[in-house]
This record gives sequence, C-alpha cells and structure tokens, in this order.
Amino acid sequence: MAEQGVNVDLAKERLNATFDVENLTNLIYGGPEKVERRRQIHKVASEDPFYKKLKPWSYCSVEEQYENGLAKHNHIKESIDKLELNGFEDLCVTPHEPGPLDVHYGMFIPTIEQQGTAEQKEKWLASAYSEEMKGTYAQTEMGHGTFLRGLETTATYDPKTKKFILNSPTLTSIKYWPAALGKTTNHCVVVAQLYTRGACHGIHTFMLQTRSLEDHSVLPGIEVGVIGNKFGFGTNDNGYLKITNVRIPRDNMLMRYSKVLEDGTYIKPKNSKVSYGVMVYIRSLIVKQAFSALAEACVISIRYSAVRRQSETFPGGIEPQILDYQTQQYRLFPLLATAYALYFAGNYMSTAYSEGSQKIEKGQLEELPQLHALSAGLKAFTSYAASAGVEVCRICCGGHGYSHASGLPKIYVSIVPACTYEGENTVMMLQVARYLMKCYKDKQQGSKLPGFVSYIAEIPEKSSCMDEHLSFNCLVKAYKHRAARLIEAAAKHMQSLIQSGSPAHEAWNKSSVQLLWAANAHCHLFCVQNFVENIERSSGDSKTNEVLKAVCQLYGVRGILENLGEFIQDGFLSGQQVDNLQNAMFKLFEVIRPNAVALVDAFDIPDQVLQSCLGRYDGQVYQALYDYAKLAPMNQTE
Amino acid sequence: MAEQGVNVDLAKERLNATFDVENLTNLIYGGPEKVERRRQIHKVASEDPFYKKLKPWSYCSVEEQYENGLAKHNHIKESIDKLELNGFEDLCVTPHEPGPLDVHYGMFIPTIEQQGTAEQKEKWLASAYSEEMKGTYAQTEMGHGTFLRGLETTATYDPKTKKFILNSPTLTSIKYWPAALGKTTNHCVVVAQLYTRGACHGIHTFMLQTRSLEDHSVLPGIEVGVIGNKFGFGTNDNGYLKITNVRIPRDNMLMRYSKVLEDGTYIKPKNSKVSYGVMVYIRSLIVKQAFSALAEACVISIRYSAVRRQSETFPGGIEPQILDYQTQQYRLFPLLATAYALYFAGNYMSTAYSEGSQKIEKGQLEELPQLHALSAGLKAFTSYAASAGVEVCRICCGGHGYSHASGLPKIYVSIVPACTYEGENTVMMLQVARYLMKCYKDKQQGSKLPGFVSYIAEIPEKSSCMDEHLSFNCLVKAYKHRAARLIEAAAKHMQSLIQSGSPAHEAWNKSSVQLLWAANAHCHLFCVQNFVENIERSSGDSKTNEVLKAVCQLYGVRGILENLGEFIQDGFLSGQQVDNLQNAMFKLFEVIRPNAVALVDAFDIPDQVLQSCLGRYDGQVYQALYDYAKLAPMNQTE
Repeated sequence: MAEQGVNVDLAKERLNATFDVENLTNLIYGGPEKVERRRQIHKVASEDPFYKKLKPWSYCSVEEQYENGLAKHNHIKESIDKLELNGFEDLCVTPHEPGPLDVHYGMFIPTIEQQGTAEQKEKWLASAYSEEMKGTYAQTEMGHGTFLRGLETTATYDPKTKKFILNSPTLTSIKYWPAALGKTTNHCVVVAQLYTRGACHGIHTFMLQTRSLEDHSVLPGIEVGVIGNKFGFGTNDNGYLKITNVRIPRDNMLMRYSKVLEDGTYIKPKNSKVSYGVMVYIRSLIVKQAFSALAEACVISIRYSAVRRQSETFPGGIEPQILDYQTQQYRLFPLLATAYALYFAGNYMSTAYSEGSQKIEKGQLEELPQLHALSAGLKAFTSYAASAGVEVCRICCGGHGYSHASGLPKIYVSIVPACTYEGENTVMMLQVARYLMKCYKDKQQGSKLPGFVSYIAEIPEKSSCMDEHLSFNCLVKAYKHRAARLIEAAAKHMQSLIQSGSPAHEAWNKSSVQLLWAANAHCHLFCVQNFVENIERSSGDSKTNEVLKAVCQLYGVRGILENLGEFIQDGFLSGQQVDNLQNAMFKLFEVIRPNAVALVDAFDIPDQVLQSCLGRYDGQVYQALYDYAKLAPMNQTE
Repeated sequence: MAEQGVNVDLAKERLNATFDVENLTNLIYGGPEKVERRRQIHKVASEDPFYKKLKPWSYCSVEEQYENGLAKHNHIKESIDKLELNGFEDLCVTPHEPGPLDVHYGMFIPTIEQQGTAEQKEKWLASAYSEEMKGTYAQTEMGHGTFLRGLETTATYDPKTKKFILNSPTLTSIKYWPAALGKTTNHCVVVAQLYTRGACHGIHTFMLQTRSLEDHSVLPGIEVGVIGNKFGFGTNDNGYLKITNVRIPRDNMLMRYSKVLEDGTYIKPKNSKVSYGVMVYIRSLIVKQAFSALAEACVISIRYSAVRRQSETFPGGIEPQILDYQTQQYRLFPLLATAYALYFAGNYMSTAYSEGSQKIEKGQLEELPQLHALSAGLKAFTSYAASAGVEVCRICCGGHGYSHASGLPKIYVSIVPACTYEGENTVMMLQVARYLMKCYKDKQQGSKLPGFVSYIAEIPEKSSCMDEHLSFNCLVKAYKHRAARLIEAAAKHMQSLIQSGSPAHEAWNKSSVQLLWAANAHCHLFCVQNFVENIERSSGDSKTNEVLKAVCQLYGVRGILENLGEFIQDGFLSGQQVDNLQNAMFKLFEVIRPNAVALVDAFDIPDQVLQSCLGRYDGQVYQALYDYAKLAPMNQTE
C-alpha cells in the first residue's frame, strides 16, 4: 500500500492531547527501560520476514491456521535464544492465536514440575523441554466441566501387575476440549478418579502416552482426534480422547502429594490447598488477557472513531468525526476507563500471586482463602467486562466492525471463552459469594475481618456524601455501601429460608441470584478502589494524573449509573444526586474527548498486534480496507 | 448415529408441563392448518437427499459455503413449483445462511418494481425473474453507511450523448458491503448523487451492468470483487465496486418518481415519503428475524440445560439438571420471555406494515411518522435484545456453547449485524427520539397525541400501584411512567441548553444519551404493552394462557429490575416494592420451570433448522457431539 502519512484527523487528535503520551506509556509498562525493551521486540518481529510472508489469518482455513500456529511456534522457539526473549513476551507478536504448544508450556510442564516427584521430573522434564514429549492437560470431559468431582474417567490400580488401568467408562467421560489434544501432542496428564483396593480416592493426575514418539501414530486403546471447528481458536487442535483399558506403570501417577504404594495402599496428601496456587496464577493471567483484549478493542474503535466522519449535525454542515457524538462517547469512553481499571486489577493480581505463592511455600495459608476468592471473582468480573466491552467496540465501528478486516471479531472470540474456561464465571462468582457469606457470619459473630473485606463490618451510612466533584472518597464509599448492602440482603434471605425449614443447599440455591449480585458488587468495588489507590499513589506527572483521575472518575460514575438501582434502592443516593452524577458523567466526556486517542496510544500496541485495518496507527483505514479486499482468495480467480 | 430414543430427563420435562404444547404452537403460527403446512415443508426438506449430502457448514471453507449457498438457491428454485412453496417459507430449511441471491429477490427486483417506470419493468423484470440478470442493491460505500446524503458516488448527466457518467470519485466512495456484489451478480442498482446541468439533486438509483451476460467477465470501467472474510455470512459474497467513468443510457435511471429529461431537466418526485414503505417493511422483517434467532437460541440452551447435569447441591447428592439452578433460570427464563415478546412485536409490525402500505397507496400519510418511528425503534430494540440474548444462551451452554457443534455461534453472527445494517441502531433510536421530542412539543402546546404515544400526555402518578400480584395494569403503568419521565427529562435538558444559548444541533448532541434512554424506554414499553394486549385477547385455552401470563409477567418484572434506576430514581417504586418484585421474579421462575422445555418445544423448530448437537429434540447431545467431532476434516487424515 502506498505511503500516505498519518490521517489528518488523527494527527490533530495527537496534537490536542493535554498530557504527554510517553509518560503514560512509561507508567503503564513500568518505566522507560521496559518500554524500550517492548519496542525492540516488536521492531524485530515487525521486520521479521517470517511474519511478513504469512497471509492474513482470516483468509486461512482452519487447517492452515493450525499449520501456521505450529510454524509460528517453531519460529519463536528458534528466536528465543537469538533475541533473548522469554516465552511470555513473545505472545505479544502473535496475539489471539493460542499456539498448539502453549498448553505444553503453560500446563503440561508446570504440572510435572509441581505435582511430580523428583524422579518423575528427572524422567520427563528434559524430554518435555526438548519437545520430544509434547503434552497437554486432559481434564474436561464431554459431560463434566467446572465441577471436577464429577469427572468419570477412572484409574484403577491393579497390584498384581503394578499398573493403573485407565478407562473412559461412558460416553460422557470422553475427554473433550483439552487444547492440542487432537493432533499435536503425544502425551497428556489425565485427570481421573483413582480407585485402589476397591475404594475411590477422588481425582488424581496420571501421565498417559497417546501417540508413538516414532511415527506419531495413535497407540492401542486410545482414540483421539480434534473436536471440530469452533467460534475461534482456529490455531488450536482442541481434542477428544477415549481411553479403553490402557495400562500405565504405577509411577505414571504424579505422586508428589498423594501416593499409591506397590501394594495398592493409598497415601493422602498432607495439605489439600496447595494446588490453589496454580489456579490463582492462571486466573491472574486471565485478568491480564482481559485487559489486553479490551485495550486493543479500544485502540481500534477510538482511532477509527476519530477518522470516521458521518452524518451532519446541521443541514449542510461538515460530517463530524463520530467520536464527537455524545452517544459514541457514552459507549466508548467508559470502556476505555474499564480497560485502565482492568490494567490495574491485573497488576494487583500478579503482585498478590507472587507474594501469595511465597507464603504458600512457607506454609502460611491464612490469606489463601481471600486471595483465592479474589482471583476467582476478578477472573469472572474482568473476563465478562472485557468480552462485553469488545463487542460494544466492534458495534461502534459500524459495518466495518463486522469484517475480519477490523480485527475485532477475532479479539472477541479469543476473550469470550475466558468466561467459561478455568472456572465458569457464574460458578466463580458463587465461590466469591461463599467466601463473602463466611465473612458476613464472622462479622455477625463479632470477629474482625481481614484487609479488603473489612468494609463488610463497617457501620453503614444512610446517605452518600457524593456531589458533582466526584471525590474518590465518596465514590469508593458508594461502592462499599452497595456491596455491603447486597451481601447483607443475600445473607438475610438465606438465613430466613433456613429458619423457615429449608435445607441449607436449597436455601443457597434459592438465594443464588442475590449471591451473584453481592459477589459482583464486591468485585466491582475492588476494581474501583484499586484504581483509585493506584492513582493516589501514582508517580506520574500532574498532567498525566489529571487525565487519569478523570478516567478513574468516569469508571466509578458510569458503574453507578449502569447499576443505579443497586445504589439507590435504599435511598443512599437521592434523585438530585443521581441527576448530578449524570451531568458529571457528561462533563467527564468533555475532559476525556481531546485525550481519547492519546489514552489509547499510550497502550503502545503496534499495528502488527492489532491486525486491524481500522485501528492502524496512521489512520489510513480506507486504503487498508481496499487492500484487504483485494487480497481475498475469491478475488484471485474469476 | 445409533437410535437412542429421547433422553430421559427431556422426556420427563415434557410429561411435567402444565399445558398442551400443541395448543401453544397453534397459537403462535396461526392455527392447526398453518402448523401442518409448516411441518409438511420441514418434512419434505428433512427427507430431501440434497440436504443430507451437504457437509456441516462449519467444516466448509468460505468458498465452499458460498458454492453451497448457490447450490441451495438453485435447488430451492427447482423445488418451488414442485412443492408449491413460496420464497419465504423456504428460508426455514436453510436458516442463517443468506443465499447469494437473496438480495436479488429481496432488494433488486422490488426496487425495479417500486421505483421503475412501466417501460423499465417491461425491460428488466422478465430477465431478472429468469435470473439472466442477477442483481444487487449497491448503496453503502466504504466511507458512508447509514447517512445516505453523504454518499459520494456520482451520476452526471451528459445531454450530448444522453448518458449518465457513473463514477467513484474517491477511495471512500467505493461501494463496499453490498450482498452478492463480489461474484454472483451481473447488475446492480447503484445509489448515486445525481448531477445535471451543474446542480446536484441528491441521491437517486441507477441500473448498472457490472459483468457480461455471456461469460460473466467484468465490464470496462468496473472493478469488482468480494470484500474479504467476515464474522459470519460465509454464504454471501459481499462485494466492493469501483466505477470509473462508466456511461449508461439515460433510461437506466429508475424514473418512476424523479426524472431527468433528455435535455437534462430534472423533475422532482411528487412526494418524498413514499420510499418509507420499503424501509418499514425491511425493518419489520428484522423484528421477525430477531425473534427467530432468540427463539432458536432458547430452544438450544433450555433443552441442553435440561439434559446437562453438573455439580452437586449437597455432598454426595446427584448432579442436578443445570436448569434447576436459580442462576441458570435467571439468565435463561427472561430470554425465553423476551423471545415471546419479540414474537408478538414482530406480528404487530407485519400487520401494521400491511395496513400502513394500503394507506400509503391511498395517499393517507398521517400515521406514517408514527409507524416509521416504531419500525426504526423496534428494529433497534429487538435486534439488540436478540443479539445480546443469543450470546447469553451460548454462554449458558458452557464450553460446548463455544463449539460450532452447538449451532449458537452461527446464530449470533447472523443476527448481530442486524444491529448495524438497515440503519445503525443508535441512529435508529435517535430517530425515535426525534419523533418523541416532536410529540412532547405537541403535548406542551396542548395537542392531542395519537394512539400509542398518547401516554406522554397523561398526568404522571407519583407512586406505583405495584404489588406482588404483578397486575398487567401496574406493570404497563410502570413502563409508561418511566418512558414519560425520561422523555420529559431529555426534552427539558435540551430546552435548557437552548435557552442558555446552545445552537439546536449542539443541544441535541449534548442531550443525545438521554434521548437514547428515552427512546429505549419507549420501545420497551411498546413490547411490554403489546405482549400484555396479546395475552388479554388470546384465544388460547386457560392452561396455556396461565403459563403465557407468567411469561409475560416475567418479561415485565425482569425489565424493571434490569433497569431499576430508571424506575425508582423519582421514588415511583419504593424500596419495599422493589423487594417484592424481586421475590415475585423468583416465584415466577418456579412457575416457569416445569414448563420451560414445553415453552421452547412450542416454537416447533425442527432439528434441521437448529443444526445443533445441544438443541436436538431427542436430547442425545453427547452422542451428537462425539459424532460431530468424528466428522472433522482434520480427523480424516493422520
């Protein structure tokens, strides 16, 4: 495509920003050195002929997407030493394309490392790192997802042969969904119900070879294949696995914690909570992914909204940039604010995870329940917010948003399964609620509540201090008030059902919608409060902070207006205060408007990552759309 | 797949329903005869070897989807006489696959019929019906969508040669998106700015041949191709068209209303509102499509939720059907209720359109503004509700919802563009708002308001009569109160801006979010009130009506709770009333629970239409998922 320079409107937007974008980028990525490093990597990738010769993913069949996924993996693997990359940074250059071996590095190897004995690590890790063994983690079954105790695959110990017999006893027990199970891998860690000496000891993990290391042929007793095409994840051969009486050696059970002795004696693990750490880690990654997805969608839709002109505001007037429409600001600016909120939430989770796992190593498990609840809640809250937000961004781009040229459908189909995998969001929220109910009971019994949840025990104020200045203090208090009220309402509802004779599980189910509301309000409070705390202790310059403050206020005020009933049902905010909040929101749009493009530029996401005709840094969207069309395979023939 | 009979849980659900499904199906489709006819067609289609030999769409490349689309079109065309079908009914057997010639029959031919002169019809229609001419409607440009006056394509009359010169003068003027433009068609109706004698007369329509009738080669001055791959619509070759100084005869302008004489004199149309009729018609079709999409998604997700068992409510308890979880009911039952609301809204629109177009023919245009506003509003309100609802249904199916095996992703990508095409939803809602502001002004000036909008002039009540019985009267009043209040708030906000010196267009823009809220509340009220009126005059039996009444109440109460702030900001409902509403909603779940499967069965959508492993009538979802996986092309090779 011909060099056309930067679109005039976009260039003007960048001149009009009231703060220095570079300062904000430094703030986001932890200083100029880290920003420089990021850019180096992106520069290398953008100049790499390997990426240049790949055709756009949307013009590839699922088979080609998969082949490209493998090729990319091998290419990155070669580059890792050359460029001194680490695995995570690479992902930046191939976004939204979970490679066929991501699960090998992300789940298979870590599982061996965390659940294997010293001998098992010795035996498998070298081969896994060399990719002779290629593995996945086979947990989910056709009939069983988030509820692990329901898994049906069996591993029955036979003391005569000293082997486990693995089996898929039913249709519903067929493993279904594990990434890279269909074609790529030759091993997997199977999660199965352990039977020994006639007793079931619940789920445990077992190493199973599925394909030959020589010719990759499927081994006896194994039926394995891909599960077929999906909404997205074309690069990944999610698979199914049916196991028919496959015998594996006793020491293929991962025995760091639980053990089965040669004679079939089962030895319990010392502590059942140690595996929480991995879950917390993966959920903290999802929060970061949610941020990235929403940030990218905001970059695309806000830049495009600055370039796109449509309609007229008065007869014969010039068509305005669509970013000037209040309705467009109303849809996009709160999402931009949400992206920043998710960014800070993701940062919090990483830190909390590292600190938490150090404590776990030392055997200090007191804070684990709170951390576990927060990770479950934020996983659900942020994946949902990002997914819904990405679709709004897409629809805000009009017709072109529907084309794969926009890059937006791919972002959506990549982030929305995060609402389901690694713990279905509703189930996650109910776990949060369970923790909150425990806290509420502790409060009723006069115990002190730890850290962040202590607000539950505060004496509620009858009315809000909110005025048009939207002080952080009043914003946070409003969210605390709402969460505390909903927690109390759910708890009281449940207690009243129990008092009138309902069994506990029935009272729980009949209160579960209210419990969801409470858990959601709790997570929302966390995001607001954490955003506020980050601004308050920000090391940025005053102009940057001023804009960030407006973004944070918008996040807070929009959240109130979007869930208004929950904030005002008890009269906490008056009708007049609500009117003021609405006006304050409209004024914030005006503060953010000149900075909108700069606020997305600050995410510093290169064009190669965005893969979007609409979101290009140079704003030459129409030329790019035209070029995209001409590349279509159907246009290469008559 | 082996015959397994109906899944036990699903069979039990059907036994437990409190009403006769057949009665409701008859109610929905207008009596036993029409139901019988529907079933006949479906039976023929389901036994047709043509459909049986097609591979699942999700395993087809875009090119194959397109080829299959053409093949289906030709097959249906052959069947039409044989089966005494009409075009619309056929669509039932190939859902969510807009055929490459749908636009030929849906837009190209109707445009000739409505905008062509007698001579033009004579000249083109026979060839169009025989499909020698294959046409599309080329309106949208790369840089111009909903705002038609902004189109840039020019048609300049040259009196010397008596020809129009068609041109795409800029990059942004390239036609982009028209269905079937890329490959299928050889003609199109081009919408272009008419220039004659040095003056521009705004947009008009012109017949342009793009490809040869002999060998389908592209004609000189024409550059045409597909726009590349999209989120969905794989069967359609949406295209782009660049026109470089192409001369067409003067009588290729569609001249029934406007004319250009030989000497270049321009003759204006007598009435500029006549083209409203087509828009109203197409928007009424979208309301019906929104219903179908949401209904299908509800069938799939509710049947699957009756089959799927997950988790345990107490230790060691049997895994419950997920439909028994209150949280699942909270997500799905209101959508089921919405599907019924959209069904009645779609019915209303069809009737209103036929009555309206008869009046237009007679020159009675008084009711046109109200009808036009309602069609714009319902198009936006229902397409958005259905799109968002389908995704909720999909997510409610957990991991399997993400597989194309579920059928749900395809429903989503088919309905969500309806939020954008035929008038972008935000723009549509602002058209509604413009009408409402006019009504409000009329009210202020003491005029009587017509029909449905008369509520705007009613004297507002201070508090709601709502109690736990959820009377229809109090429900409708609550929606009226909310809509009237929001209309007034938006009007007053705008008026105060104008009084303080803002130009009208600026006041409009700065009030546009509030205008959206008002328009949305107005459309929501329509859907509630129309649902209520349909139940009240229903000819169904008492048991059916009882269930439908609960569904209607749920639609009403859920809408209040979802938008609670708007109902209570002025104290119209008290905190206690809101608590009662919540409890009433939970009780309605219990009424609907035993009837949920029957309520979706009543839509009578055959498996062949659903194309879903999860939504099958027999509930054999796991066998179907297994079979789907085995069909995957990647499993056919090692």
